[in-house]
Amino acid sequence: MEWEIREERFKEERIPALGNRFLVGNGYLGVRGTLEEYTKTQLAAVNLAGIFDQVGDGWREPLNAPNGFYTWLKVDGIIYRLPGEEPEEHCMELDYRHGIFSRKTVWKTERGMITLKTERFASLDQVHLCCMRYCVSADFHGEIEIFTGIDGDVWDIHGPHYGRFEIEFPDRGSRMTAVTHGEDQSVTVLERFRTDFPCEIRERSFDKKAGHQIAFVSDGCSRYTLEKAVVVFTSRDEQWDMLRGEMILRQFERLGYEGLKQMQIQCWENLWKYSEVRIEGDEEAMASLNYSIYHLLSIAPREGKSLSIPARGLSGQTYKGAVFWDTEMFMLDFFLFTDPPAARKLVKYRIDTLEGALQKAESYGWKGAFYAWESQEGGRDACTDYNVTDVFTGRPVRTYFRDKQVHISAAAAYGILRYVELTGDDSVLEEGGLRAVTECARFYDSLLLKYLDRDEYEIHDVIGPDEYHERVNNNGYTNRMAKYVLESAADLLERYPYLAQKLPYDAGTLTERFRDGAVHLKLPVPDEEGILEQFDGYGKLEDASLDEVRGRLLHEKEYWGGANGVASHTKIIKQADVVTWLSLFPEDYSRDIQKKNWEYYEPRTEHGSSLSSCMYAMLACRCGMAEKAYPFFLKSAKADLTDGGKEWAGLVYIGGTHPAAEGGAYMTAVEGFGGLRFGKNGPEVKPCLPKGWESLQFYVCWHGERYLIKIEKEKWEIGKV
Amino acid sequence: MEWEIREERFKEERIPALGNRFLVGNGYLGVRGTLEEYTKTQLAAVNLAGIFDQVGDGWREPLNAPNGFYTWLKVDGIIYRLPGEEPEEHCMELDYRHGIFSRKTVWKTERGMITLKTERFASLDQVHLCCMRYCVSADFHGEIEIFTGIDGDVWDIHGPHYGRFEIEFPDRGSRMTAVTHGEDQSVTVLERFRTDFPCEIRERSFDKKAGHQIAFVSDGCSRYTLEKAVVVFTSRDEQWDMLRGEMILRQFERLGYEGLKQMQIQCWENLWKYSEVRIEGDEEAMASLNYSIYHLLSIAPREGKSLSIPARGLSGQTYKGAVFWDTEMFMLDFFLFTDPPAARKLVKYRIDTLEGALQKAESYGWKGAFYAWESQEGGRDACTDYNVTDVFTGRPVRTYFRDKQVHISAAAAYGILRYVELTGDDSVLEEGGLRAVTECARFYDSLLLKYLDRDEYEIHDVIGPDEYHERVNNNGYTNRMAKYVLESAADLLERYPYLAQKLPYDAGTLTERFRDGAVHLKLPVPDEEGILEQFDGYGKLEDASLDEVRGRLLHEKEYWGGANGVASHTKIIKQADVVTWLSLFPEDYSRDIQKKNWEYYEPRTEHGSSLSSCMYAMLACRCGMAEKAYPFFLKSAKADLTDGGKEWAGLVYIGGTHPAAEGGAYMTAVEGFGGLRFGKNGPEVKPCLPKGWESLQFYVCWHGERYLIKIEKEKWEIGKV
Repeated sequence: MEWEIREERFKEERIPALGNRFLVGNGYLGVRGTLEEYTKTQLAAVNLAGIFDQVGDGWREPLNAPNGFYTWLKVDGIIYRLPGEEPEEHCMELDYRHGIFSRKTVWKTERGMITLKTERFASLDQVHLCCMRYCVSADFHGEIEIFTGIDGDVWDIHGPHYGRFEIEFPDRGSRMTAVTHGEDQSVTVLERFRTDFPCEIRERSFDKKAGHQIAFVSDGCSRYTLEKAVVVFTSRDEQWDMLRGEMILRQFERLGYEGLKQMQIQCWENLWKYSEVRIEGDEEAMASLNYSIYHLLSIAPREGKSLSIPARGLSGQTYKGAVFWDTEMFMLDFFLFTDPPAARKLVKYRIDTLEGALQKAESYGWKGAFYAWESQEGGRDACTDYNVTDVFTGRPVRTYFRDKQVHISAAAAYGILRYVELTGDDSVLEEGGLRAVTECARFYDSLLLKYLDRDEYEIHDVIGPDEYHERVNNNGYTNRMAKYVLESAADLLERYPYLAQKLPYDAGTLTERFRDGAVHLKLPVPDEEGILEQFDGYGKLEDASLDEVRGRLLHEKEYWGGANGVASHTKIIKQADVVTWLSLFPEDYSRDIQKKNWEYYEPRTEHGSSLSSCMYAMLACRCGMAEKAYPFFLKSAKADLTDGGKEWAGLVYIGGTHPAAEGGAYMTAVEGFGGLRFGKNGPEVKPCLPKGWESLQFYVCWHGERYLIKIEKEKWEIGKV
Repeated sequence: MEWEIREERFKEERIPALGNRFLVGNGYLGVRGTLEEYTKTQLAAVNLAGIFDQVGDGWREPLNAPNGFYTWLKVDGIIYRLPGEEPEEHCMELDYRHGIFSRKTVWKTERGMITLKTERFASLDQVHLCCMRYCVSADFHGEIEIFTGIDGDVWDIHGPHYGRFEIEFPDRGSRMTAVTHGEDQSVTVLERFRTDFPCEIRERSFDKKAGHQIAFVSDGCSRYTLEKAVVVFTSRDEQWDMLRGEMILRQFERLGYEGLKQMQIQCWENLWKYSEVRIEGDEEAMASLNYSIYHLLSIAPREGKSLSIPARGLSGQTYKGAVFWDTEMFMLDFFLFTDPPAARKLVKYRIDTLEGALQKAESYGWKGAFYAWESQEGGRDACTDYNVTDVFTGRPVRTYFRDKQVHISAAAAYGILRYVELTGDDSVLEEGGLRAVTECARFYDSLLLKYLDRDEYEIHDVIGPDEYHERVNNNGYTNRMAKYVLESAADLLERYPYLAQKLPYDAGTLTERFRDGAVHLKLPVPDEEGILEQFDGYGKLEDASLDEVRGRLLHEKEYWGGANGVASHTKIIKQADVVTWLSLFPEDYSRDIQKKNWEYYEPRTEHGSSLSSCMYAMLACRCGMAEKAYPFFLKSAKADLTDGGKEWAGLVYIGGTHPAAEGGAYMTAVEGFGGLRFGKNGPEVKPCLPKGWESLQFYVCWHGERYLIKIEKEKWEIGKV
């Protein structure tokens, strides 16, 4: 397998998509797959994890660091850049085995050819460090100038965030500290470069940019190589000072680009050792799945406190850099299976942000923990009440994601519970996990409603996974998850009495309430055709086809949901909802019922969320329909490899990478096709491979042990490593 | 006082408004104040009570009868009509003491002056009969032609309703039977005319019109008078045949226009005897109030089965000719005080339509009676789920008037209960009233919700009187009315055990449930400032001013409410809501609280409904603020006299007369300024007259007796008649 993606030729309109596709990152930062000469116009960005800022009434979003890769080339007075000077040859590559981005561009001039080759990576070993190599050659004697430095005029969606810049020029390098308007946050970028050729160098600072102008005359045959190291740190980093930055730079001086690159390769090889999924007989599947895994590995937080993975990874400010249910429900399994300490970090994020969830619940008059729909640091909810713009009037539209998508707390609890279940490491319960799960259960308990003349308990006025239908009663998925949380919390309280007694509640009373709630909570039951109604009244909605509904759009960027969207009063749903329920709780209903619901809901699903396909793929595998699952699996695995993903919700840009789809593709491969599950004695499989897959091989962790699983058609081996 | 309104000069753009303002009617039909030559283009219509039809997917609406007044004038080959030939002089009058419309138009031609004077009325004595006089004079020898007949090409909003016309020409008259597409309904119009001059007459039928061409040559000084009688009946009328129509026409032949007009005058004088409200010292108030009373008298159903008063009276198909809560909450008092048999008819309508209400409740999964928000015959709900059109996209907007405006059942029960209370006639309880009230209580009982961890009962997801805020929880007005119905039903079940035992329920159990519901039902309580929150969360909405909110409109016909209207997420309300509650239940809170709420909500009220002003006027009177009440009273009394009323909701025409405002003006006069209430021994007053009112005098019925009440500033006399 090639472990590379490549984009030949240059097309300006593809710049935003490629910026996502060729991303390199290390969990601390993400460097968009943009070219060195790009500025904010081309959405160049070094996106930072876990540091946020708000300007005026704009959305609160993560900071982009000043871009330390910023470099351009001038030959005989003409700047050669893209877009601008049409290239003779152009190619971008991403070695996703090792997280190395490279680029080659050839320009034909009247005097001869100029070739630019660059390479860069975000160090996995030292997450504050990025490295770059910039090689120029010309087959003529040209007056060449390279500008390289730091571009503080960064791309912002709701900016500009920086109000002030401090610039200094230490020896062969620049330093820029960008300070937010509120003066409460700052990002510092240090760069140091070295050249392998004699040249004139002078400092330059202009237009929020600082760096050096490097001038020389090419000899017609040499390659001129500039290497640089870029160090990034922020006011959020603990125990950071310039000295530490200097130490990192000194390592660069000592080892050079090549030395650091070898370390990078080694680090990635170590990661892949147990992360790689091998599929014999289907190179496309194997390549796109491992490409998906590459992204997950690139954005997982390994250092720093209280970090998780944002819904668009580290590809930009889209979705406010916030953490959604995506992490627990779609990405967590990958880390649980391959890197439990990383999974623990994700799970701890929810425990650390419990305070925010308690406050949010209280602000709405509920008890317990109502986690942020769009979680920023401290569990702060970045989701606004007006999250979509009406394309016809330009007005913000009141949406209910923040206040009604109550299944988010179940996701938080699910993550903690699943971590304990698969790792056997119950120390997280002691470190606040039991409290968090209990508070989630208290939250659902406080939502329970009962009609005086009925016996069941109900949960009203929510949004389920299918966001096109707002403010519905008794969403099956939500109620099922609430029941799961209530039951699980009751179980934990009984199993961990010494932890339960530290809670500020009477554990016995809570347990009883939770059990009662779980028993009486209303869940849809299959109708005569075996269909589970997604929510009360769904069955009475207009049964228009997807094409019909799409045909009613009057504007391409129109939002399908909300009060009056084209889908809102029809059966067309945005994404897997009942199917997500059945996929998570296959034991609830027979394979026959699962299949009937799959077949009922699939044609009614727009798959307008990248979270949809993998759930359909997963459930199809559970029903033994590997061939039906396969296209959904591939769609999920290629979410960031294929053009045409949704880039707009109303007038809001939602482009970026799709880690949930990537995690979903992984889940489908190992839990769907592989049929991986966990019994009392560890992993078991019940494979259901698609046509052409000769074998499927992966590693999986369980209770402190690592297992290698090899499946060959109907046979398999499971062995401890 | 003049008892006349007059419109001098002709302005084409005023045609629709004047059609409402100059309406004559008799409860069976309403004849719009349009000119004889008008067709559907000028919204000419004879609107019928209680007969409905639906064409295709259009709204179901009342039928307009073929227009038997249709007449035009030709002189020397030129048709003289409005709009068309510019008149030298033009005037319309309505004698609202006697329900007589008249018109005078003078045209100046090259040969001389032509004068047209007409008069018409809808007989109060014989509701199937209308009469018209049509006088032409010319001061030159002209060749005059009059066409008079029946125009079957009627104005329809969601038509055309008629698929077939049968036409005959009996002696000196025409007969047209118009049959709906479904062939299930028909309307027959007979006309008979007579002339006082020699002429040539020939039958003509063209373009859905049938009648006679009358030709003569004017002598330069005579007045030529055509009289005609128009008889209307429908397939809905019981025991009707052509013979009865003929008998009515024979009466016309015997008495002529003048004879019938004298009868009309006598009938109206009889009505006014106990209906008139006299106000000394304020002619404007007295005139507009009695003009309002005129409309109520013109549209009250006195014959026929199961009729009530539509929200736009008999002025057209607006609001689908349907009956709303307007009748019980705004109009009923007038009839209770002046004409209890008419009030009984209104109340019986709800009892007769109980079956529809039971079915509606069942269709939504509720128990008991959920009355139609827009009630047509049999209690059929004409309200659609898409009652407003989005002005920006032209799409229908999902509204929740039909399914969430649950306070309608309380209005139905309130009407029955108030009738019994004020008349002492409890026979309506035996005739189904007790059942109806009980079913309304069962409905509210089935709506009661309880959070498992709270003690109160709640009603969620409703629309209160303020329709701009949809799907709210615990609307104060709705919950207060529900409590009233629950309590009242429990009282009735205890007071009428012999009726209660005929119900298909165990009365004891019901009584207990109703009492428990009434006791525990959540009602807002005054906050620190004494304000009652209109619904849960109202207090947290944006407190934008009315001007600000109006300033956000992007389209003049844009709907303010719904999910995304300019008012929806602000504190701006459409109409009195908390104020309606306090106005109906002044005993709930002190005058101080009432006043604070009046002062809080009034500036936040758009008064976008004609039902709003009178409630503010009423409560202001209760708080002793006669001067604050006065402008609201006058606005209510002049609802159909003033230009500038709301004629559009989204793209839907909502123009017509405003009987609820008229009834509300009456209530304000006698119950507000007059301070009328009923003690154990009959009517009492606690007047609060506005400046300038020297005296206020009216009659009122109570328990079978009629009382004359004369108030002079702080003194008053109440005497049995």
